[in-house]
Amino acid sequence: MPATTTPTQARKVSEVDQWHMETEVAIVGFGGAGGCAAIQVADSGGKAIIFEVASASGGSTAMSSAEIYMGGSGGTRVQRACGFEDTTEAMFTYMMMSAGPQADEDKIRGYCENSTAHFEWLCELGVPFKDSFHESRAIMCLTDDGLLYTGSEKAWPFAEHAAPAARGHNLYVEGDNGGPLFMKIVTENVEQRPAITVEYEVRALTLICDDNNEVVGLVVRKDQQELNVRATKGVILCAGGFVMNDEMLRKHAPKLTRGNQAIGNPGDTGAGIQMGMSAGGAAINMHEGFISLPYYPPASITGGILVNDKGQRIINEDVYHARLGNAILKDEGERFYFIVTVEQYGDYEKMNFMAAEVCGTGETVAELEAELQLPGGSLQHTVSFYNDNVAHGSDPMFHKASEWLQTLEVPLVALDVTPGRGSFWPYFTLGGLDTLPSGEVVREDRSVIPGLYAAGRTACGVVRRAEGYSSGMSVGDATYSGRLAGKAAAAR
Amino acid sequence: MPATTTPTQARKVSEVDQWHMETEVAIVGFGGAGGCAAIQVADSGGKAIIFEVASASGGSTAMSSAEIYMGGSGGTRVQRACGFEDTTEAMFTYMMMSAGPQADEDKIRGYCENSTAHFEWLCELGVPFKDSFHESRAIMCLTDDGLLYTGSEKAWPFAEHAAPAARGHNLYVEGDNGGPLFMKIVTENVEQRPAITVEYEVRALTLICDDNNEVVGLVVRKDQQELNVRATKGVILCAGGFVMNDEMLRKHAPKLTRGNQAIGNPGDTGAGIQMGMSAGGAAINMHEGFISLPYYPPASITGGILVNDKGQRIINEDVYHARLGNAILKDEGERFYFIVTVEQYGDYEKMNFMAAEVCGTGETVAELEAELQLPGGSLQHTVSFYNDNVAHGSDPMFHKASEWLQTLEVPLVALDVTPGRGSFWPYFTLGGLDTLPSGEVVREDRSVIPGLYAAGRTACGVVRRAEGYSSGMSVGDATYSGRLAGKAAAAR
Repeated sequence: MPATTTPTQARKVSEVDQWHMETEVAIVGFGGAGGCAAIQVADSGGKAIIFEVASASGGSTAMSSAEIYMGGSGGTRVQRACGFEDTTEAMFTYMMMSAGPQADEDKIRGYCENSTAHFEWLCELGVPFKDSFHESRAIMCLTDDGLLYTGSEKAWPFAEHAAPAARGHNLYVEGDNGGPLFMKIVTENVEQRPAITVEYEVRALTLICDDNNEVVGLVVRKDQQELNVRATKGVILCAGGFVMNDEMLRKHAPKLTRGNQAIGNPGDTGAGIQMGMSAGGAAINMHEGFISLPYYPPASITGGILVNDKGQRIINEDVYHARLGNAILKDEGERFYFIVTVEQYGDYEKMNFMAAEVCGTGETVAELEAELQLPGGSLQHTVSFYNDNVAHGSDPMFHKASEWLQTLEVPLVALDVTPGRGSFWPYFTLGGLDTLPSGEVVREDRSVIPGLYAAGRTACGVVRRAEGYSSGMSVGDATYSGRLAGKAAAAR
Repeated sequence: MPATTTPTQARKVSEVDQWHMETEVAIVGFGGAGGCAAIQVADSGGKAIIFEVASASGGSTAMSSAEIYMGGSGGTRVQRACGFEDTTEAMFTYMMMSAGPQADEDKIRGYCENSTAHFEWLCELGVPFKDSFHESRAIMCLTDDGLLYTGSEKAWPFAEHAAPAARGHNLYVEGDNGGPLFMKIVTENVEQRPAITVEYEVRALTLICDDNNEVVGLVVRKDQQELNVRATKGVILCAGGFVMNDEMLRKHAPKLTRGNQAIGNPGDTGAGIQMGMSAGGAAINMHEGFISLPYYPPASITGGILVNDKGQRIINEDVYHARLGNAILKDEGERFYFIVTVEQYGDYEKMNFMAAEVCGTGETVAELEAELQLPGGSLQHTVSFYNDNVAHGSDPMFHKASEWLQTLEVPLVALDVTPGRGSFWPYFTLGGLDTLPSGEVVREDRSVIPGLYAAGRTACGVVRRAEGYSSGMSVGDATYSGRLAGKAAAAR
């Protein structure tokens, strides 16, 4: 893992003897947030330079599926074409529940109210979405369909409170290729705007502050030289999260160290967050992140039950995969199994993300229970209780939706989903600089640091925990928050 | 709740036109940490001023039971007299498990290795401990006994990994009066040392930093005037946590807002943490705190079972009350009940802390299950499964220790321990400034801020989460970390 080389003290303007470059808005990082920020600066009549440490644009957005979570206001064009008349209130309620106690109501309100307009903005950039609905339960869409369910919208308890609607917008491209296409389009848009300059292979080192603690520029390293960049309207930090910084992970988000696959680009070292902190910015929600057991596809696994080492079920198995994964991480149990029928197991070996191994089979439940070393009678009770209720079409304990209620008939198969035993646990960070909805970075007392903005995973955005995550919320947040920061900086 | 009035930007020394006071070490806050810090400064040959916003010493330590968690090195005098030959390794293992993934190994190692010496130091101050053991399971000792179990030492999984020993040291005083006595003794010790001055009713406002970001003093408000205090050796922040600051709680530790009784003094506004952040200090573990359901005494409740709204048990009921409380908070369930026999209920009404109301009784388990609206058959299975195993002297699911395994015979009583339904949920914060074991405050990159120290709840100490809390860890940490900070500052 690359260590950060960012000093955590901002440079004083009194120590700057020469300005090597000047712009209105300096943007650190050319992923989804930085790219959209730059476009918005230019379209607001401003000038921007993007500093990107890599030799090309992309960031973590290009590595993602680039699903984008959008809806409300009666539905986007794609939603309406697919029969979803999504309301802003339903989307707001769902996203508030998603963020849970950490929710930033103002940010979520703004995101939901402006979401269909954001869709239109993306379309104007040239981002293509097909007016078609992908029916099957998937983590990412491998077809070119434009819309799918990407969260827990149809699952308890969300569906009880917010009318479900599919909001995951998928780019019009076959396979898991949304990210590269999205960043290609954003990059083309950046290149078409003369007001934007891009400096690749340039590392941002630290911010430059004046005597009033206002951010007036930043120090970058280019061709092994330190250059002082003056930014007359401000600096926007879009440098990703800190998933690649082991020390920060251990210190702030030890939960994530239970994962085994960091999701992000090598630049996600937390340097942007550290730069913001050095100018007085408060970092919040640093303990949280996305961490998940991606147990579908095949969707058929959803018909099975998840049990802990007491043979107890712990959650409705039809939720989003990160919500189920987090139920495992929160449970006191030391071992966890997915119990499925042979039919549900199906072609699991041909197509699965979670990589959990078969650790037991049983011609009877008692046999499987013994093989898994569960307390005698525990799994037998759980299965018979579950089956008895399935026979009546209900799941009184966990409220799994009826479409997934299937009798567990022997022989049964157990998949070991214990963290650390081979199953796949991807993770990335969700903590970052505290910002106003405008993208302005604030101090611990929420006073604004003049001239400093953050967006994407460098900021703490609308999506705040794995338990309520839905795919598409990060790219949605990055692109939308980037735009707001660009607009605010340009208007300064 | 009093809002903090602390500006979150440090004052520059260039803005200081006059020093109104001067000392070597300025200490903010006169609770357990600040008092012990001052004593240690004086005993190291240094001079100190303590600034206390209240009109008397005390802080949250005086409001506590002042149990002090100490042991290792073969045992303190009291432990040895009571038959506990405690080892440093056992204490270290237990405390590492207690802190979990957030553990600071260096701090915990130092705390355990020096714990019996800390006991001796307290004895030399005049803190009295009786060489007697309090047998019964208690949250606080209402007798004058000197030693009791105050954590989960004898419970699974701790007892499997670390030889249990009682480490909660209780002052030689009847009733829950340890805190006032402890602070009386500390205050007398402070007053006996001419090198220490105490300024009461003086509020610390902000730190003063020089051009190298070194802390050289602080601004205080005394008699409605702002005074600049020069501190040639440094400033020690011992101003408590942030449990009284609603805004910080909601932002950083929303879990704690599920509690209904803030534990602390009115000065716990987070002002010390904010001052440290303003000088570049990193705050860590800000999402964590102590939050608990104090379900004993009467100890007899421990013989019952805790179930969620699925009728499932979720934890061994013989753990420390904050560990059980947190199992409730982590569970997806919406309702929680303690199910006890009439005998276990006993004289619950006469003496209980948790204040949970009886919400159901049943001549049969089925009757109680129906009354509690639990899924049909769920509680019946849980109770019969539990009883079957109790008959064999075991608890294969949760490993409750055999001394607490009692058959649940009807009639049964249900106590509603759902958060928000009347039961008592005390809470306080456990996040704070990141410090080295010496008390030196560090930045996000762990570089030291010269001249700045923190101790007690203003720092993030050895105790980091409710799930592993034991009573006495906070006063133990406050007094010990205060001493280390005092020693380090005096030696500067």
